[in-house]
Amino acid sequence: MVQIKSIGITAKKDENMSDWYEQVCLKSELVEFSTVKGCMVIRPNGYAIWNKIQKYFEETINKPLQVRNAYFPIFIPESFFKKESDHAKGFSPEVAWIDKELTKDGERLAIRPTSETIMYDSYSRWVRSYRDLPLKINQWCNVVRWETKATRLFLRSREFLWQEGHNVYETEKECENETIEIIKKYADLVQNLLAIPVLIGKKSEKEKFAGAVQTYTIESFMPDGKALQCGTSHNLGQGFAKAFNISYLGQDEKKHFPYQNSWGLSTRLIGGLVMTHSDDKGLVLPPKVAENKVVIIPLLFKGKEKPITEEAKKLEKELNEFSPILDDRSDYSPGYKFSEYELKGIPLRIEIGPRDLEKKQVTLVRRDNHKKIALKRKNLKKEIKKLLEIMQEEMLEKAKKKVNSSIVEVKNFEDFKKAIENKKLVKMNWCGETTCEEKIKEKTGASTRCTPLEDINKKVTGTCPHCGKKAKEIMYFSKSY
Amino acid sequence: MVQIKSIGITAKKDENMSDWYEQVCLKSELVEFSTVKGCMVIRPNGYAIWNKIQKYFEETINKPLQVRNAYFPIFIPESFFKKESDHAKGFSPEVAWIDKELTKDGERLAIRPTSETIMYDSYSRWVRSYRDLPLKINQWCNVVRWETKATRLFLRSREFLWQEGHNVYETEKECENETIEIIKKYADLVQNLLAIPVLIGKKSEKEKFAGAVQTYTIESFMPDGKALQCGTSHNLGQGFAKAFNISYLGQDEKKHFPYQNSWGLSTRLIGGLVMTHSDDKGLVLPPKVAENKVVIIPLLFKGKEKPITEEAKKLEKELNEFSPILDDRSDYSPGYKFSEYELKGIPLRIEIGPRDLEKKQVTLVRRDNHKKIALKRKNLKKEIKKLLEIMQEEMLEKAKKKVNSSIVEVKNFEDFKKAIENKKLVKMNWCGETTCEEKIKEKTGASTRCTPLEDINKKVTGTCPHCGKKAKEIMYFSKSY
Repeated sequence: MVQIKSIGITAKKDENMSDWYEQVCLKSELVEFSTVKGCMVIRPNGYAIWNKIQKYFEETINKPLQVRNAYFPIFIPESFFKKESDHAKGFSPEVAWIDKELTKDGERLAIRPTSETIMYDSYSRWVRSYRDLPLKINQWCNVVRWETKATRLFLRSREFLWQEGHNVYETEKECENETIEIIKKYADLVQNLLAIPVLIGKKSEKEKFAGAVQTYTIESFMPDGKALQCGTSHNLGQGFAKAFNISYLGQDEKKHFPYQNSWGLSTRLIGGLVMTHSDDKGLVLPPKVAENKVVIIPLLFKGKEKPITEEAKKLEKELNEFSPILDDRSDYSPGYKFSEYELKGIPLRIEIGPRDLEKKQVTLVRRDNHKKIALKRKNLKKEIKKLLEIMQEEMLEKAKKKVNSSIVEVKNFEDFKKAIENKKLVKMNWCGETTCEEKIKEKTGASTRCTPLEDINKKVTGTCPHCGKKAKEIMYFSKSY
Repeated sequence: MVQIKSIGITAKKDENMSDWYEQVCLKSELVEFSTVKGCMVIRPNGYAIWNKIQKYFEETINKPLQVRNAYFPIFIPESFFKKESDHAKGFSPEVAWIDKELTKDGERLAIRPTSETIMYDSYSRWVRSYRDLPLKINQWCNVVRWETKATRLFLRSREFLWQEGHNVYETEKECENETIEIIKKYADLVQNLLAIPVLIGKKSEKEKFAGAVQTYTIESFMPDGKALQCGTSHNLGQGFAKAFNISYLGQDEKKHFPYQNSWGLSTRLIGGLVMTHSDDKGLVLPPKVAENKVVIIPLLFKGKEKPITEEAKKLEKELNEFSPILDDRSDYSPGYKFSEYELKGIPLRIEIGPRDLEKKQVTLVRRDNHKKIALKRKNLKKEIKKLLEIMQEEMLEKAKKKVNSSIVEVKNFEDFKKAIENKKLVKMNWCGETTCEEKIKEKTGASTRCTPLEDINKKVTGTCPHCGKKAKEIMYFSKSY
């Protein structure tokens, strides 16, 4: 047997989530810190998850909404940023510029932190008539934001990958409706593919996107009591259209400014995935997002190696649709292998030993709850398929329960503070004022997450637990990533 | 009817290919010049082609060779470049650096022109044992090379998109074999998906990649007498492994340096596609690479609008697998529509008029050769499928004939010069010396393209037509993009 140093996670999720998280990310080989400060390397195991997200996205968002992919330059002239003043203000602290030597003859160029301005410069040429609308374009790309805080794998780095959609509509209503439809589709992706429960809601004035009329968000709540924004969809109104002179000749033969939205989700989702499901043994992946859904480990008892190996190979072929890994290395013990695939988050482990062979069965172990199940060889494929579907559902349910049990409704600020200290997600009737929001953040570290979509027009009673003014809306608060 | 200004191509491919090319690219809405100097915007029509290339690539290269996708930082520390001296020399003139202000506390960062160095820094941590090999990783990303020559859409721009594969092997033989297998797979992609014929060959010492032992290439030959390098696969030997200290413990328990290759193809392929097939009416796309393979245009004769429109809608449903466009706009004439879809390169146009309805047929027009074909409604789907396959083959055959008719074998330098002036692709027995190659380029503008794979070990006779020394190998020469 090969001598192996411990590959397992040495921190506990409950005790030191930050350390645990980093270890899970690194040891399951999703990602590593780059030698380049502030940057990460997304390794094949991590990128496979991103590819799954992309595929689901193409099928459930691009196709049905008839959004088309395109690619715009990574460089953005300084003057473009300045055209929309809120936008410029919002992004300026973290913009990375390229060497001035390169642009001696012209204006400074930034490396894109987001692409509204460079895209809308093109849009001003492409949109002429109502016939050109709606225009719906998505871009998969890298973006750079020069973070000065410590790097957190997937969650905060100077470069990350994302998609950014940018649509243009004739009417305000069309724009608003699709801005909301998109945030709902994001929720579908995050809940049904990644099994992460989310709140769908509207951001406060303070937290909305720089340059937006309204930002919708999906917010997940992590086991350490911090919210993670998983995707946003911004109704930009006509602000950018006016700043970039995007206009169209309507059916009425008059010139109009169109309405726009932009919407994005990024590789930080992978961080949310890790935090939501993984445990002290390593990564746990919902079956739908796992590249290899099954690992087959033959228990090579002395003298029985041949029939067992043969059976394992037969199984590998039979279970082809689940992209199984067959690990028949003879110089590693089954125990070592169990740990390795637990660490890497393979959803189902299949063990085959002499007893299984005898009984015409296999032994399965679920990664999510460690339950052992014996299944007859007959109908195995069908049964595994069913089992994976059940796992997917149960993982979402389990995560939902955890989030729901974290929600605390408060009526006074003492309870608010206590709840935040106890890592809860606070729900309350709130005054809606930015100054109040800022003070709450100062005092407790908690920020507004969102007003749930279904509560936006709900009448609320009472007063704001913090400032005592009349409450105007329902708002969730918590610390956040 | 709407008043329309001319949307067609006003330059002729035969007379002014450069102007014609730019017009086709712009007017078929594949791409546009960005306001940012040196950069291009890949529009949805262009990006759809890139997506087709990506999909074909994933199926025919990544999957069978078990290459996995990953993502490495866009920023590369200056010291990384310096580790492999040939590599550093080759790329230094066109490297774009970021603002020194951002890296005051550390070393200068470049924006990647290629990722060997940043990837191999990670590889030095990932490769430990022979068990970690082969390591095969591919990255889809943007790269930046600060070109100072005029921008040419898809062909030369400061930023472009590509894939770069980077593999590591235990043995020299494995590495060399797969370096060649990959260039053959590139040839398959370019020929069978894009219908562009290519020479597969080996680059000269002078033209090989900076840091490579050997570069293999696929070279296509454009109608204007210039070659276009369509993809390269570099055998890097152990140079980078030694420079980046990538080593592994072999089965013999000794430390070894592995062998590496890198291989890439880029969005310039789309430029080759345009030049090879398109004509004075606009873009011509091989069916396999066309997003919409069919456009249906009902000929709305007065009084017959209803049955014709209904038939067109029926057809649209029936031909769903070809992603048909149904253009039933009543305020544009059929002639206008014909021109529009010819410009955009939709492979098949289907016309339905009263006569077609009567005869239970449709009239088809092939984009590649303008041939009109009447097809019975019965079995239409099957017939269209067949027709598209035939088109795909015939487009490749036609392009092959054109290239083959451009090849001129020469035995003396007068003939060489004449052939290059006449925009030919020259084949000759050559001395293989870099100084000779440099002088030929000075005198004629022609550079070495490649020694065809099948001719690498062929014995050649005679003397070099240029310098008179003993000929050592077969070499193709031409001007190039």
